[in-house]
Amino acid sequence: MSQHDAVEVIIAKREGGSLSDSQIDWVIDAYTRGEVADEQMSSLAMAILLNGMERREIARWTAAMIASGERMDFSTLSRPTADKHSTGGVGDKITLPLAPLVAACGVAVPQLSGRGLGHTGGTLDKLEAIPGWRAALSNEEMFAQLESVGAVICAAGDGLAPADKKLYALRDVTGTVEAIPLIASSIMSKKIAEGTGSLVLDVKVGTGAFMKDLAKARELAEVMVDLGKDAGVHTVALLTDMSTPLGLTAGNGIEVAESVEVLAGGGPADVVELTLALAREMLAGAGRSDVDPAEKLADGSAMDAWKAMIHAQGGDPDASLPKARESHVVTAPSSGVLTRLDAMAVGLAAWRLGAGRARKEDPVQAGAGVVWHARPGDRVVEGSPLFTLLTDEPARFDRALASLEGGYDIEADAASYEPQALVIDRVS
Amino acid sequence: MSQHDAVEVIIAKREGGSLSDSQIDWVIDAYTRGEVADEQMSSLAMAILLNGMERREIARWTAAMIASGERMDFSTLSRPTADKHSTGGVGDKITLPLAPLVAACGVAVPQLSGRGLGHTGGTLDKLEAIPGWRAALSNEEMFAQLESVGAVICAAGDGLAPADKKLYALRDVTGTVEAIPLIASSIMSKKIAEGTGSLVLDVKVGTGAFMKDLAKARELAEVMVDLGKDAGVHTVALLTDMSTPLGLTAGNGIEVAESVEVLAGGGPADVVELTLALAREMLAGAGRSDVDPAEKLADGSAMDAWKAMIHAQGGDPDASLPKARESHVVTAPSSGVLTRLDAMAVGLAAWRLGAGRARKEDPVQAGAGVVWHARPGDRVVEGSPLFTLLTDEPARFDRALASLEGGYDIEADAASYEPQALVIDRVS
Repeated sequence: MSQHDAVEVIIAKREGGSLSDSQIDWVIDAYTRGEVADEQMSSLAMAILLNGMERREIARWTAAMIASGERMDFSTLSRPTADKHSTGGVGDKITLPLAPLVAACGVAVPQLSGRGLGHTGGTLDKLEAIPGWRAALSNEEMFAQLESVGAVICAAGDGLAPADKKLYALRDVTGTVEAIPLIASSIMSKKIAEGTGSLVLDVKVGTGAFMKDLAKARELAEVMVDLGKDAGVHTVALLTDMSTPLGLTAGNGIEVAESVEVLAGGGPADVVELTLALAREMLAGAGRSDVDPAEKLADGSAMDAWKAMIHAQGGDPDASLPKARESHVVTAPSSGVLTRLDAMAVGLAAWRLGAGRARKEDPVQAGAGVVWHARPGDRVVEGSPLFTLLTDEPARFDRALASLEGGYDIEADAASYEPQALVIDRVS
Repeated sequence: MSQHDAVEVIIAKREGGSLSDSQIDWVIDAYTRGEVADEQMSSLAMAILLNGMERREIARWTAAMIASGERMDFSTLSRPTADKHSTGGVGDKITLPLAPLVAACGVAVPQLSGRGLGHTGGTLDKLEAIPGWRAALSNEEMFAQLESVGAVICAAGDGLAPADKKLYALRDVTGTVEAIPLIASSIMSKKIAEGTGSLVLDVKVGTGAFMKDLAKARELAEVMVDLGKDAGVHTVALLTDMSTPLGLTAGNGIEVAESVEVLAGGGPADVVELTLALAREMLAGAGRSDVDPAEKLADGSAMDAWKAMIHAQGGDPDASLPKARESHVVTAPSSGVLTRLDAMAVGLAAWRLGAGRARKEDPVQAGAGVVWHARPGDRVVEGSPLFTLLTDEPARFDRALASLEGGYDIEADAASYEPQALVIDRVS
């Protein structure tokens, strides 16, 4: 590998130039080895954030991060593989019903997930509400479970894209998170290294999403779809609404319960709709468009796959879920139609109740969260329950209530109310 | 001091906003204490470089860096004080004759200087060519010498603007040197903390200068003059040419010898011109426009002050200066008029001969450097000496010769030659 100098690479990007393949390979490798220091990578990250990157640079940057670690290979499995990644939203429990549903349709789902930080929950935090369930699997255990059950949701090992792991932690403390080239390469380096054959991206847009703006969300989706295709992974993105939270719950145990309702053939309509939309994309990407996932929800085979998946990772799918010790009901202040329910307000309330964490070493409460009893478009009656707040620590209620203030509208005359489409667009 | 968060401050500047006084005070203080990490300050520095700062922000940033350390006070001296700062040039030995000259005119000069890095030399490196001379003085020794001799050139102590010291080292390795707000605040925090009553800035512009471009140099000068005035220091800037090196020498001992020629009433015309121009500004700033510095050069009193200044710091002003062990003469390839002599080419040659350093811990050679035997406008004859290269290590000649290639023009017909004014403009 040819030799470069960190200051040379930083200045090239600072002056608005594009980095050569050789500069990118060198800087990622040298950063992983510790030869390029954190303070050098952070000024480079800020220059990338402010001056951007060409598609070629992003593709090379992603490839260099993949090359910094191991790359898994599921090509010897007896079934095709498909995975889903969401950019994160409030009440976004979709992975829970989706992975066993797709497995029940004959496609293996190797889902490496993370824990939550801030107002959006983490899939592993939710599953850890199930007594006995464990997130850590070896590569061999993962492979065996994919063959036997067809679905795995587990923690990503340290071996995948270690450069991304280091860079992600750095960006978090240096104000350089919100750069599309860095977001796209971070997500896609992990997903490509994970070895899935096809990938569906759920790019959220709206108040509760990382991307508040449709144009930016679309740009992110396009960049990621290109990266996936370039790496030989069949990749599609759906742009989906996150101005309203998904379903009727935001928390850990309560989202597991809602997911189980969906697997039992019930559950909130929006959760069912998005689960099926993503399942159809995953099946199409894996060449199994012939299977109808709605049937697999209806006939109980998705529920069977769920129970097998939880059981295989030490969990008891029939155990009762932890309950919060304290609850507080917020009633509707007037009668009318709920015309707005803000995803960020609900996400912050759940976080403040203890469902999420402020620092990555913080614990989360399995029973904490927010249940809402109406969705936009629903009629509510003054004095009837609108929210139920759940926590083990009643001192948390005040700040959670404050975050819900101004977070919803009830209008007597809802003539002007227009429902928002859940799936806004598709990028392929 | 109110509490802030590093990421909040970084994002404010990243998004193109201006930082509040409270944010600036906090971030400089927290960085000095180590609470804000290097990787956070470097992404902030890149955001400042790319998004700029308002004058108010630069003034507050400078004040916060001054407040991070001690501030010297020379108000009890029996004479007024004046100092000069140059942004750095090739052959720029002006401080050496200037400080004793101004002292001889009745104004005290408390000059805190640095060592060189890269193609421009450092004043302390030059003076250290004088046998016995030492750069390190305590504040008490400095004060006493200012009272007795009237001029001090010494190393800045660690107590002045420690935030700047830390930030300067960080910028050097993170590609964030070339930001006018950071350059201006770095220079002015040290000069204001140094306690001079008036200040003249020699802002160089041209190929051999940090600022290649007149508009940028003027902007830097204006920002620095404003900062000085805001802090109660009488401040003026001269924009001076650095497309051609100053005098006839670039090195350490050879520049001391040239300075002594000037103090003896001789020396190259441009060095004399700039020394007198800067002296007049310093005298005017200190309220002593009544004294003519040209007389003090002519009557030997500037030379007396020089000898006293060198002697007070342990040096022998009459000792012979170290000589390089090897020399190499470059002759003129044709006859005609020297129409261009590039400051950067000469500076790099001197640096490669051992007069300068690549890393701050490197030693410099006292005898190394370049002597040029003609200045632009002078007639040269084919085969006569054009440059003399000096070094202790003959292996260095090749690379030094390479940097002089293309660094000068000799034209048979010099009808189109127009001399460049040395003092380009004045900013006050």
